[in-house]
Amino acid sequence: MKKTVINELRKDPLVGRWIAVLGESLPPSAYIGENSRETAKENSCMLCAGRESETPMEITRMSPASLADPARKWSTRVIASFDPVFTVEGDLGRRGEGMYDKMNSIGASEIIIESPHHHVQPEDMGLDQMIRVIQTYRDRMADLEKDFRLRYTLIYKNHGKSAGALSGHPLSQLTSTPVIPKRVKEEFDHAKQYFAYKERCIFCDIMREEMRTENRIVIESRHYIAFCPYASKFPFETWILPKRHNCAFQDIRPDEIEDVALILSSFLKKLRALFPDLSYNYFIHSAPNRVTRKDHWHTLGEDYHWHIEIMPRFLRTTGFEWGSGLYILPTSPEDAAKYLREV
Amino acid sequence: MKKTVINELRKDPLVGRWIAVLGESLPPSAYIGENSRETAKENSCMLCAGRESETPMEITRMSPASLADPARKWSTRVIASFDPVFTVEGDLGRRGEGMYDKMNSIGASEIIIESPHHHVQPEDMGLDQMIRVIQTYRDRMADLEKDFRLRYTLIYKNHGKSAGALSGHPLSQLTSTPVIPKRVKEEFDHAKQYFAYKERCIFCDIMREEMRTENRIVIESRHYIAFCPYASKFPFETWILPKRHNCAFQDIRPDEIEDVALILSSFLKKLRALFPDLSYNYFIHSAPNRVTRKDHWHTLGEDYHWHIEIMPRFLRTTGFEWGSGLYILPTSPEDAAKYLREV
Repeated sequence: MKKTVINELRKDPLVGRWIAVLGESLPPSAYIGENSRETAKENSCMLCAGRESETPMEITRMSPASLADPARKWSTRVIASFDPVFTVEGDLGRRGEGMYDKMNSIGASEIIIESPHHHVQPEDMGLDQMIRVIQTYRDRMADLEKDFRLRYTLIYKNHGKSAGALSGHPLSQLTSTPVIPKRVKEEFDHAKQYFAYKERCIFCDIMREEMRTENRIVIESRHYIAFCPYASKFPFETWILPKRHNCAFQDIRPDEIEDVALILSSFLKKLRALFPDLSYNYFIHSAPNRVTRKDHWHTLGEDYHWHIEIMPRFLRTTGFEWGSGLYILPTSPEDAAKYLREV
Repeated sequence: MKKTVINELRKDPLVGRWIAVLGESLPPSAYIGENSRETAKENSCMLCAGRESETPMEITRMSPASLADPARKWSTRVIASFDPVFTVEGDLGRRGEGMYDKMNSIGASEIIIESPHHHVQPEDMGLDQMIRVIQTYRDRMADLEKDFRLRYTLIYKNHGKSAGALSGHPLSQLTSTPVIPKRVKEEFDHAKQYFAYKERCIFCDIMREEMRTENRIVIESRHYIAFCPYASKFPFETWILPKRHNCAFQDIRPDEIEDVALILSSFLKKLRALFPDLSYNYFIHSAPNRVTRKDHWHTLGEDYHWHIEIMPRFLRTTGFEWGSGLYILPTSPEDAAKYLREV
């Protein structure tokens, strides 16, 4: 709202990574004692039902089946972020700066409020509510795909302080960017190479391999498997992979929505049973926006496969991980899956 | 010493990342309350002078000029890691496992003790001692390059708890791997592409651009610049880049060793003046081992350029960063450099 400064996207010339630089820099003092500032917010939460007028602009809301309960005027609600890094107004303004490249940070930064109630864990909100959350994810992705300037929408959740949570209120976040982020582009590029070599989707191959060996599978449902990947970056990292080949999350079918709500919710319950106060992140990886880019991405339907990655955050990454990109896994995926299956 | 189980290196089939899996898995309980365990170690430090016989195997030590002080039997000391992830014994054992690929984690995990004294900050140990630390880095890298099985040696420092420090004793760590780690390989591949296109080293180009614009430079010395990169991942991230084009850190000249000790030490002093209790990581990025790979890497002399990256660790990475690889920078590199120059 108050923002007039323009944030920038800059490209790292060495590895091709885009990063966003805020137009108004924080001073060094802002980085000292940051944690205490966060908890102060917690006493009074404007994301709760009844304080709708105080939040940033509402983008959409999902109404519940029954309106009997006044606290239930909505079941999920999507609002603009408090300090949006990406904003919809303006043009991309692609330009050079000496040898470097930059553009404006056009896009969307949204908060998906998962429940009107503050003190409910995602895995305890009930299957019906989890289904609504997943439907909200799908609707926002489908809507944002229509904007020609946007290349990618990432939906992600930061649960707990070590995972970077904004608030104790159950929420997910969404960021749409005018570039395909590095981590995501890497997956597409490699999946495409694999397809070129094997003429098979790498995710479908991983699915078959995991169902054959079984020892890394945590839960299998009708439409999904939840498994600990063979070369996880973090202990107890788990992916939820749909059995039906489908590159785009927003093309999910209604029966698949129900089933993913169920498997996600069951998995989070298991995770909490093993680690009561765990911080974690999850995010959905889906194909880039295709609407205006049919030519460029026309094979993506074959070689990419949407999925959810869930990353528990108990280990601190060290200089070795940052410097090398090689992660040390103190618990094998086979053992992690076993602990998660048996809990 | 006690280790008989073999750790594995596994390759992520999707993005080609190698990760190391410990042969003996930690149970879930090991991840709960880990921080309290770390501080317990602190009361009694076997890395201090006088307890040499209690540490893992000594690999090398540097003797000081004067032996008058009994606590000064050595100035720097290199020992094997307490729980080495990579070990020198055995063969690579490259093999498949279903659709996946793995090998044994042959390599080296070493601790470089930077001082016999526990309570000395790296930037306060004096220039002569910092020079010895840099010489020790160089000697270990040159020595490990002779092992035909090893492809890369990463030297890194974890300072402070949030950066994953093992102990309060001033130390750096070293890991040699039989694969080129992902983050490092990415730099080489992109630097090579840039060279193929421009016929110039990308780092030399960055150097010239930074010296032309000046606004991201923190310190310039005779042989180096310390600057905040145009598209940093983290606020106040700083790179030290040698002015002389040289791909391999171990080929550093004596006058360059003195000068890098000086610029690193001056930079760390500035960082501490701005952020008194900051955790940070730094690491040296250098060309892969070349001894037996002259053919494959023969152009590396032209297209790669060693450097040090220093990463302050105050922000928590969130699901957005992990999911996208796109980082949000709340303080611009120009402002960060200004704060660091002026302190």
